[in-house]
Amino acid sequence: MTEATESDLNLKVYLRERLQLVETAMDRYLPAADASPAHLHEAMRYSVFAGGKRIRPILMMAACEAVGADPARVLPAACAIEYIHSYSLIHDDLPAMDDDDLRRGRPTNHKVYGEAVAILAGDALLTEAFVLLAHPDFARTLSADVRSEVTGIIASAAGSKGMVGGQVVDMESEGKPVDLETLEYIHACKTGALISAAIDCGAVIGGASAAERQWLKRYGQAAGLAFQVADDILDIVADQELLGKDVGSDQERGKATYPALLGLDGARAKARDLKQQALAALDDFGPAAQPLRAIAAYIVDRSF
Amino acid sequence: MTEATESDLNLKVYLRERLQLVETAMDRYLPAADASPAHLHEAMRYSVFAGGKRIRPILMMAACEAVGADPARVLPAACAIEYIHSYSLIHDDLPAMDDDDLRRGRPTNHKVYGEAVAILAGDALLTEAFVLLAHPDFARTLSADVRSEVTGIIASAAGSKGMVGGQVVDMESEGKPVDLETLEYIHACKTGALISAAIDCGAVIGGASAAERQWLKRYGQAAGLAFQVADDILDIVADQELLGKDVGSDQERGKATYPALLGLDGARAKARDLKQQALAALDDFGPAAQPLRAIAAYIVDRSF
Repeated sequence: MTEATESDLNLKVYLRERLQLVETAMDRYLPAADASPAHLHEAMRYSVFAGGKRIRPILMMAACEAVGADPARVLPAACAIEYIHSYSLIHDDLPAMDDDDLRRGRPTNHKVYGEAVAILAGDALLTEAFVLLAHPDFARTLSADVRSEVTGIIASAAGSKGMVGGQVVDMESEGKPVDLETLEYIHACKTGALISAAIDCGAVIGGASAAERQWLKRYGQAAGLAFQVADDILDIVADQELLGKDVGSDQERGKATYPALLGLDGARAKARDLKQQALAALDDFGPAAQPLRAIAAYIVDRSF
Repeated sequence: MTEATESDLNLKVYLRERLQLVETAMDRYLPAADASPAHLHEAMRYSVFAGGKRIRPILMMAACEAVGADPARVLPAACAIEYIHSYSLIHDDLPAMDDDDLRRGRPTNHKVYGEAVAILAGDALLTEAFVLLAHPDFARTLSADVRSEVTGIIASAAGSKGMVGGQVVDMESEGKPVDLETLEYIHACKTGALISAAIDCGAVIGGASAAERQWLKRYGQAAGLAFQVADDILDIVADQELLGKDVGSDQERGKATYPALLGLDGARAKARDLKQQALAALDDFGPAAQPLRAIAAYIVDRSF
């Protein structure tokens, strides 16, 4: 694996290389498409391999690297968190939820496999995340204590007080006036929790000191929120081709967004501020944190 | 906790006492109904506390007891497996799946909270199972190695090659002719896997020897299948009041059942045979396995 500590880090190359590692690992760990029941495993793979940026797994690797450990150690946990992200997208797209027909330019899972299989494929992916966290591959390189801590971090972030909780509040807020505090709560839970968990898992697996872990948590909170603010901005300005979903679809649905609350310029100022917070949290880290710095900048800059 | 080793075990008292332990533990571990987001936590508690028999947690305790350990040690894992059972019922009842309005005589989760919250309450319960398996209470009494093994056993049983897989094949078989082999596959996955996992977790947490674990696995396979055969029989013969769901609803829906394939008498003979297999697997166990024996008998005898 290329050491990405040079100050002239080529982020594009770095992201492509890491993405490939994650794709390869997921392909290896996921049940084969022809394993029985094949219809279910196909549906799981359809959504997992739908071309995501793999930002959570890559952040986990980068956090592990930032504390001086081999990023390959996190791969099972990195895949687990990506399965959870994939399952959440499948369920979010369901007719009873956001009722989306397209995701990344392709028909959503339930459009291809039907609603029942889509629900079950999501359930199975969530479950498979925990199968993976108890996988022998993971046991070989990490102590059971670390694996158990990582299981707790990921499950808590994905659960009723994290991602799922955020989704419920988001849905219940649709079409209602939402203040900035509620919007931050929604995003801290709905997308922030899993991103923060990815970074925290990278820190724990990498053997971070208590101080390093705290700083990485601050980085994760700022970067996670920045990611959402940038997404909201992109939803307004990007063209359909770029995102593969209906432009301004959040707005149509009456969803609260940062641009709606702060205006486009205000949302961009917020994203810039969060980027600075994320970078400041890494002040005590050396060149090994260069990928984390570049990713924070990338997350925000893509929305300008 | 009463020692249930007397040969004159009073099963009713035993089941009631163990059920109370599980209810109390679940109430303690589950997020409070007023914890934010309250709507979600209410929905989770609505289905968890809908009056189940808690057969999986009780079997886990009984297996732990059968190998000479304190059954209270399994409580977090026992609650975790019951959360998973509860989530599976919520998702099974959804309009896209079995579309049931009643469950144990009460409106199903989506009838009360709406489809979106029901999907998310199921997701959150499944996730909460793994939060619990990493809970400090569990860490105090069990080594991380055992917790990790238990996580793997439960996740594998609940996933795409276990419970969820069985549900997919069950759905895909609706209205089609199904042979006995397929029916056994469906049940071994859909209900058998989680029941077997409960017993296996009890064995592992109780520190079973390799031989004890093997025998308990055989017991679990036979008892799990017996449970399903008995349920199929009850679906045909029980009155609506007893089951709280539409009598013969499986038959109406064109679902394959044991009585449909073997006739009512054939299904009863099968249940009796499975009971004998379950009991025979416990031949080398002493009076500490008396609850397991009584439960196997109870599972089958209620269908006569």
